[in-house]
This record gives sequence, C-alpha cells and structure tokens, in this order.
Amino acid sequence: MKLATFSEGGSVRIGVVRDDGIVDLSKAAPELPRDMKSLIGNEAALARAREVAKGGAALPLSAVKLLAPIPNPGKVLAIGLNYRDHVEESGQPMPEHQVWFNKQHNCITGPYADIALPSVSAFLDYEAEMCFVIGKRCKHVPKERAHEVIAGYFVGDDVSVRDWQLRTNTWQIGKSFDTHGPIGPWIVTPDEVGDPHALDIKCWVNGELRQNSNTKHLIFDCFDQIAHLTQAFTLDIGDVIFTGTSGGIGAAMKPMQLLKEGDVVRVEVEKLGYIENRVVPEKAETIIEAA
Amino acid sequence: MKLATFSEGGSVRIGVVRDDGIVDLSKAAPELPRDMKSLIGNEAALARAREVAKGGAALPLSAVKLLAPIPNPGKVLAIGLNYRDHVEESGQPMPEHQVWFNKQHNCITGPYADIALPSVSAFLDYEAEMCFVIGKRCKHVPKERAHEVIAGYFVGDDVSVRDWQLRTNTWQIGKSFDTHGPIGPWIVTPDEVGDPHALDIKCWVNGELRQNSNTKHLIFDCFDQIAHLTQAFTLDIGDVIFTGTSGGIGAAMKPMQLLKEGDVVRVEVEKLGYIENRVVPEKAETIIEAA
Repeated sequence: MKLATFSEGGSVRIGVVRDDGIVDLSKAAPELPRDMKSLIGNEAALARAREVAKGGAALPLSAVKLLAPIPNPGKVLAIGLNYRDHVEESGQPMPEHQVWFNKQHNCITGPYADIALPSVSAFLDYEAEMCFVIGKRCKHVPKERAHEVIAGYFVGDDVSVRDWQLRTNTWQIGKSFDTHGPIGPWIVTPDEVGDPHALDIKCWVNGELRQNSNTKHLIFDCFDQIAHLTQAFTLDIGDVIFTGTSGGIGAAMKPMQLLKEGDVVRVEVEKLGYIENRVVPEKAETIIEAA
Repeated sequence: MKLATFSEGGSVRIGVVRDDGIVDLSKAAPELPRDMKSLIGNEAALARAREVAKGGAALPLSAVKLLAPIPNPGKVLAIGLNYRDHVEESGQPMPEHQVWFNKQHNCITGPYADIALPSVSAFLDYEAEMCFVIGKRCKHVPKERAHEVIAGYFVGDDVSVRDWQLRTNTWQIGKSFDTHGPIGPWIVTPDEVGDPHALDIKCWVNGELRQNSNTKHLIFDCFDQIAHLTQAFTLDIGDVIFTGTSGGIGAAMKPMQLLKEGDVVRVEVEKLGYIENRVVPEKAETIIEAA
C-alpha cells in the first residue's frame, strides 16, 4: 500500500495511491484518523484503509498536491558515513560505530517542493537517501524484531550546507536548514517493498546522473539502526530516519559541483518512486511572530 | 513571573508560582490556554496570567508535583564547549564557531524526576546548564533583537553518556538517552531575570560542589545563539535551548568520577531555582507498542 498526504481544494488529507490515482480516505472511510501519524500507528485503521482502497473512486494524481507524507515528525534522525564509497570520498575512516545527527523537523518539505539556497551559504549539496518512518512506539528493539516497528519506506534528500556542516565536528546546523529535508512521494508499506536492502537508489541533477547505488551497500542496515538507537532512547510513531547516502555528492566531485539557483535534483529509489526539487534562493527576512 | 507545569489529583495543569505557593491557572482563569506552549506564545494570555496571579488562592508547592515546565518541546538544542574552563578540561581547541547538537525531546523530564543509569553504559555524567525557551516563532533574528524571542529561563542538566558521546564526532546519541534532560523547576520570565549573563550556576553531587561558575563566562551568549541558529532554521514556540556547561564535569576529574546508582545531582542557577535528580538504574525492557 502507498500512503500519501495531499492537499486539494484548500484542505490537507491522507489517501491511498493506486495505479489510477489517489483514494481520499476522508471520503472513502470518514471514520479513519485524518493525519498520517495517527493512521500508521493504528493497525486496524491501516487494514481498513487497505480494504476501502480496493474499490471506489480515485482522484487523478494531477488533481492534487502531494505533501511530505509525514508533515510533522517528532524526530528526524540521519546516519552519516553509511555507504563505503561515500566514506571514501569524504576522506573519513570506516566508522566502527553508527554516526548519527538530527535534522530539525522544520526541514521536512514535500516531494516536489522547492529547496532553499541559503542567504548565508553557497555550499548547497544533495544526498540521495532511502528513509523510513516508525509505526510503533519502541525501545530496546532487538535487531531481529526491528522490522516490526517500520511503518513504511520513502525517498528523501538529506540536503546539506557543506561549509556550515564541516565547520564543527557535530555537523548539526549545516544539516538542518529549513526545507532541506524533502521526502516522499508517499510511504510504501513493508509488504510492498519486500527486502529494503536490495533497492537501486539514484540521484540526478538537471538530468545528469550523480549517485547510483543500491541499498544493499548500507554499512549499518535499517534494522541495525533501530536496534542501536533504541538502546538509548524511545522511537515514537511518526519519527523519520534517513539511512545514509552513497558516493557521488557534489562536494566530492573534482571540480566541486555545488547546487545553484534553478537546479533540479531528482532522487529515485526502486519501488518507492521519486522526489524532485528545485533550488530557489531563500527570502532572508527577519520573522518574529507570536502564536 | 514564574510559570510551572504541575500535576495534582491526577491531572496536569499550568500555574504561576508565588512565595506562598502556586496559583492554578485552570481555576483562576479558565479561559487561558491549558498548556505551557500555548501560554508562553500568547502575550495577552501571559498578561492575564500575571494579573490573576496577584490575588486568589495558592496551592502549597508541597501539594503538587512539579513537571518539566515545557513537557513537549518541538526541538531541544544544546551548545557544547561554551565555557572556557570546560573547553580546557575537554582538551579541545577554543571553538571558532558555535558547536551544536540536539537532545531528543524524549530526554525531557521533571525537575525532581529520576534520571536513568543506562543498561548499556556506566559512563554517566552531569552538566549544569542555564536553559531558555522560545516564545516567538522566529527566523533571521539579529542579535540585538534576540531578547524578544525568549519566553523565559530555567535550570537544566545536560546529562551525558560519555562513552557513547565520544565514540563519534557528532556526540548525538550519548546526549540523547531518555530522561537525560531534566529541566525546571519553572520558567522565570525575562523581566524577573534581568541580565541572563550574570547568574551564578552551580552543581553538586551528593552535596559535594562540582561546578561553580557564572553565566557571564558563556563564550557565545544566549543572544549570539539565537542569531546563529535562526540563520539556518526557524525556532518555534516551545523550543528549548541548553546554553552550555562550565568546567567541573565528572569525566574530567582525576580520577574520573562517574554517576552511579543512588547519586543525587543538584543544579542551581541564581534567580532560577534548582533541580535535583536521583540516579536510578534503567529497566531495560523491549517495548514495541501500537498507539
């Protein structure tokens, strides 16, 4: 099943994507939760969504705007240095331990939304990643049970501001600019993905292939990641994990290729679809507003 | 004004702390928002809370349980290496740039709650910090206006798992264990704090003074921090910032002094009060639960 968050006619809803379009769950099954986080945490609701999506009318995809499938994750975590060729191009030693950072949840944006070229940096880069979302509140999950807590997989771009990232060892702020986490186009449930560690993953910039790998090359796979993180803290329903990028980032090309205004970045993962985002200069204005 | 989140008689409410106790805002002004994030983002509601708290009855503090004043922050950010003596004891060069990491919001716990000794590490340590909470949604805030977006200040302990922290340059996971961010005892509004960069800050373990500094020693002050972060991303109402710790951490003592079961850590900041937390072994059990 493919689960999408979309807007149409001024309201945001969730739906099931079929070959012929999207089934609006707010119409097909009004009793279901109205937001994705509530849906994916509820097995009965998921079963009902699957059932109703078999029949009934679908809106054409062209009639809706797809949004980030999880617009409001509680946590967004990302692992670095998780494909061998990317470790090598980064000039880093092979990691003995999983290297994690957070992206602020404010970075999450839609599968076809613009990404901002910051006013404070020109060192904008892409990182094609497979992502997954947590469907069960969990802690101390053994690796062999980790598959139980994944609600689904999707495509992400771990957009990075390289000068800000590399100024400090913690990387944090350069990974966290607003709009620098486009995800989508929808959540694909595990039954439809099969083995998540056998998917081709590619990235193009303006049609030029830049990254071309397969999730079988993950150093720490999705289940390792869940086992590791949940030794330390609780993962909650709706938390989003970026699983790392392969070789081919712009900063490691010779000469270095940075993203500039108007560039279009497309990230595609086998079985999950693609996202495509245009680089647009940030409107850098002071915002200070009460609720 | 001192703003607290508390439980009493099985329900969670917010209130104003006076010398004689706490004024329950749900009774004194039922029209006000019922959670702290909504209150601090609303200037009219804050003014009304200030007014009603001048009169009426107060519950004795001994009759309530104080909780984390912001139980549900959207983001929890913390700056490292931000007091000169702590940079020196850490064997690090003086930072040219602000060094940031996230604490997962799951770490937030009450001012007198237990902190967990992890099942996977014995390297537990304390870090006394002044914290503040954001009261305006904001971006690109110039330093000279940064004071406008702070809703108030409080005490925090950036509890750290040193072996996990130092395994990777990003520090992230060792800073993020559940319960490792006690905060409180309440939010003190800026008018009552005066200059936030002139406050004594101290930490005791089992009554032994370990850290003893003053917020005037911050390398990057609160306003620098806001100006820096908001160049990259939006700060939202209720986001919590840990402003760094001074020298005196257990890991830098000779011999190293780690926290162990039963230890009591007290952190006190002038004008803000104190928090006090006991170390209790984690019950390490697998949790996998649907909503």
